[in-house]
Amino acid sequence: MKLFGTMEINEEGHLVIGKCDTVDLAEEYGTPLYIMDEQLIRDRCRLFRENFKSEDIKTEVIYASKAFLTLAMCRLIEEEGLSLDVVSGGELYTALKAGFPAHRIHMHGNNKSREELVMAIEAGVGRIIVDNRYELDLIEDICKSLDKRACILLRLNPGIEADTHDYIKTTKNDSKFGESIYDENIFHIINRIIKSPYIDLKGFHSHIGSQIFQEETYYELINIMLDFAKKASQVCGIRVEELNLGGGFGVYYAKGDKPFELEVFLKNILEKVKNKSGSLGIDIPKLMIEPGRTIVANAGTTLYRVGTVKKTYGGKNYVFIDGGMNDNPRTSLYDAQYEAALANRMDEEGQNVYTITGKCCESGDIIVKNVSLPNPRVGDIVAVSTTGAYNYSMSSNYNRLPRPAVVFVKDGKSRCVVKRETYEDIIRNDI
Amino acid sequence: MKLFGTMEINEEGHLVIGKCDTVDLAEEYGTPLYIMDEQLIRDRCRLFRENFKSEDIKTEVIYASKAFLTLAMCRLIEEEGLSLDVVSGGELYTALKAGFPAHRIHMHGNNKSREELVMAIEAGVGRIIVDNRYELDLIEDICKSLDKRACILLRLNPGIEADTHDYIKTTKNDSKFGESIYDENIFHIINRIIKSPYIDLKGFHSHIGSQIFQEETYYELINIMLDFAKKASQVCGIRVEELNLGGGFGVYYAKGDKPFELEVFLKNILEKVKNKSGSLGIDIPKLMIEPGRTIVANAGTTLYRVGTVKKTYGGKNYVFIDGGMNDNPRTSLYDAQYEAALANRMDEEGQNVYTITGKCCESGDIIVKNVSLPNPRVGDIVAVSTTGAYNYSMSSNYNRLPRPAVVFVKDGKSRCVVKRETYEDIIRNDI
Repeated sequence: MKLFGTMEINEEGHLVIGKCDTVDLAEEYGTPLYIMDEQLIRDRCRLFRENFKSEDIKTEVIYASKAFLTLAMCRLIEEEGLSLDVVSGGELYTALKAGFPAHRIHMHGNNKSREELVMAIEAGVGRIIVDNRYELDLIEDICKSLDKRACILLRLNPGIEADTHDYIKTTKNDSKFGESIYDENIFHIINRIIKSPYIDLKGFHSHIGSQIFQEETYYELINIMLDFAKKASQVCGIRVEELNLGGGFGVYYAKGDKPFELEVFLKNILEKVKNKSGSLGIDIPKLMIEPGRTIVANAGTTLYRVGTVKKTYGGKNYVFIDGGMNDNPRTSLYDAQYEAALANRMDEEGQNVYTITGKCCESGDIIVKNVSLPNPRVGDIVAVSTTGAYNYSMSSNYNRLPRPAVVFVKDGKSRCVVKRETYEDIIRNDI
Repeated sequence: MKLFGTMEINEEGHLVIGKCDTVDLAEEYGTPLYIMDEQLIRDRCRLFRENFKSEDIKTEVIYASKAFLTLAMCRLIEEEGLSLDVVSGGELYTALKAGFPAHRIHMHGNNKSREELVMAIEAGVGRIIVDNRYELDLIEDICKSLDKRACILLRLNPGIEADTHDYIKTTKNDSKFGESIYDENIFHIINRIIKSPYIDLKGFHSHIGSQIFQEETYYELINIMLDFAKKASQVCGIRVEELNLGGGFGVYYAKGDKPFELEVFLKNILEKVKNKSGSLGIDIPKLMIEPGRTIVANAGTTLYRVGTVKKTYGGKNYVFIDGGMNDNPRTSLYDAQYEAALANRMDEEGQNVYTITGKCCESGDIIVKNVSLPNPRVGDIVAVSTTGAYNYSMSSNYNRLPRPAVVFVKDGKSRCVVKRETYEDIIRNDI
């Protein structure tokens, strides 16, 4: 298992994160348990802030909170000076409850409800990212009744196919997101926006997918978006003040994943925007990006306790853990790869290949396929790495399993930021 | 869209379930909304009870509650005289809270925790279905300390491959469930059980998968299990009092699904057990089955409201609804097929083919692929049928979307059995 951030192995052979022994954490908080390496999250935020800046172009780093959001996470993001991208009323509610400054919130969503837009406009979010033409009437209507103006970015589909899982591709010409730059009505839509007394078009947004390992795809995106910005300026007479290039930067989950060097990549982006806009003779005053997974994925580790080790008649070795697809549906959903180790026996060599499976009554309930472990025993602690993104946020109560607690660790201290669900929680809304 | 149970279309062209107009239900309770046709659930329960009975063999129909469980559902199952199969402490807790008689509860799980087993044994559940040899020590230890005896069935893997989705196959030789009947130690395990002063082996359990359309697979299962029962009687000198054949009976989701005739099938099962045990010269006093999906799937309909209708530059037609993969992950998880219609325009012919997608920020957020609809308009109500199983039970708060309410309808009356989640619920455990 690759070690990230503050991960280390202590003299007892235990996995340590944030100077906290994970074996002690499992004991104190119980299992399954989501551990978040707070320092690593902060380091990633800083890496983005420090490398995505330029003297010539204003920049904004916006954390895509759908990857992992809690009240504590909002506060951390606020402290680190990032902005926040929310995709629903629930995410917006969480951010506002945490006291996150509304003007640093960017409101996404392909199908925002009136209620969500009212909430966003009343709160005074910084930007609404308008997915499509049909959203405009609703925004105008709400602005009119509230006597407010909305600053928006229009989400565009640049028609790029990123090489990633079908489910998380977002910009093929048949994606549900955004308006195509090739649409014959695209300039009518822009003209309609700029004529509105309630809507202030600040610029354009695009997001080409998730878990992308080819940085060239982004450079292609820059060229397409800047060509379009120039054309829109010419056709509609607008000044494109802001360009949001989205996120989707790939992270390391397991052997074979080769994320690009972020420091270099972020500088390249700014350079390429500068060069391209220079050659086009246009000026883009502000650039934005939306990292989500890159901020939190590697910072997360899930701890489980081994209940049973089973070898089937067919010869397959299973490790049964006390969680499952309810706390991490990504393996069954995307055929995602993970790495794992025994947190209490990190110094021992792997001896056999195991499938790590959970408690759910379903064969698809697999967390890690084919991982080499030193013969696991009942009571051992399994650590699955890179579970910081889309694990807690996608977790369910399938099989009525309570969702695990979330614990932040840093400098030898741990703090629970989300309490473990109880059985009582599960029937709370039952009548 | 195929109509099930009490579904009908009224003079206004609205979909009616349980004599309740779904358009009114959407108005009264909001959307998204899970509707359950109570009469259809009761009818299915009765169909199983009435057809799975015999003068010669005792029978027990056990509802596999992981498909759909709430307090109200427990009470319904109790009223209909079925037993309840639970797979976790959370399901057991729900059943006990609803006042479900413990002796009619069957406790499953491939990796039961000590806490779960204590809960089950203290409550006095009817049967514990022991997944594997490693569970026995734990059960004995608990029984000893509580001064109780546990009645168990041993879960066996008969090595049958059912023709279904990989994720829900459960009895290949590499399945995580049960002990293989071909395992060289299988009779040692049985001998070890019968020697225990704390464990009473009542018989065997097997479950060959889910969504199975070949009834012959079950007849094959009967032959294998009865052959094994005879061998076990001979080798270990036991009397196999009970045989549980599990569930997995396929249901109709969409065109092409051909469920077998349950009335015929259930009678055939009893007949085949009688004939086979007769020819083997053994006697199986009691047979059990565990329908889950067959009881509830067709009874469930999810109502959504259309927010946007979008045609992409690539030519694809989308209907954006106010739910998504958070309330129904089955399409993205299993590539499941569903049927759908406009609940407020049931009398109109389909004119174009649409993809029904939700609010989640992810391209995989699809509920129905390629359904013919009469050009949908904003505000229309989309009904997706056969969502009674594994929808509410697998739902999540992905994108921080609150989970929908669940409403039972019957004889023109509706009652909310699970309240809609609020934003406050979503941050309830945040610290």
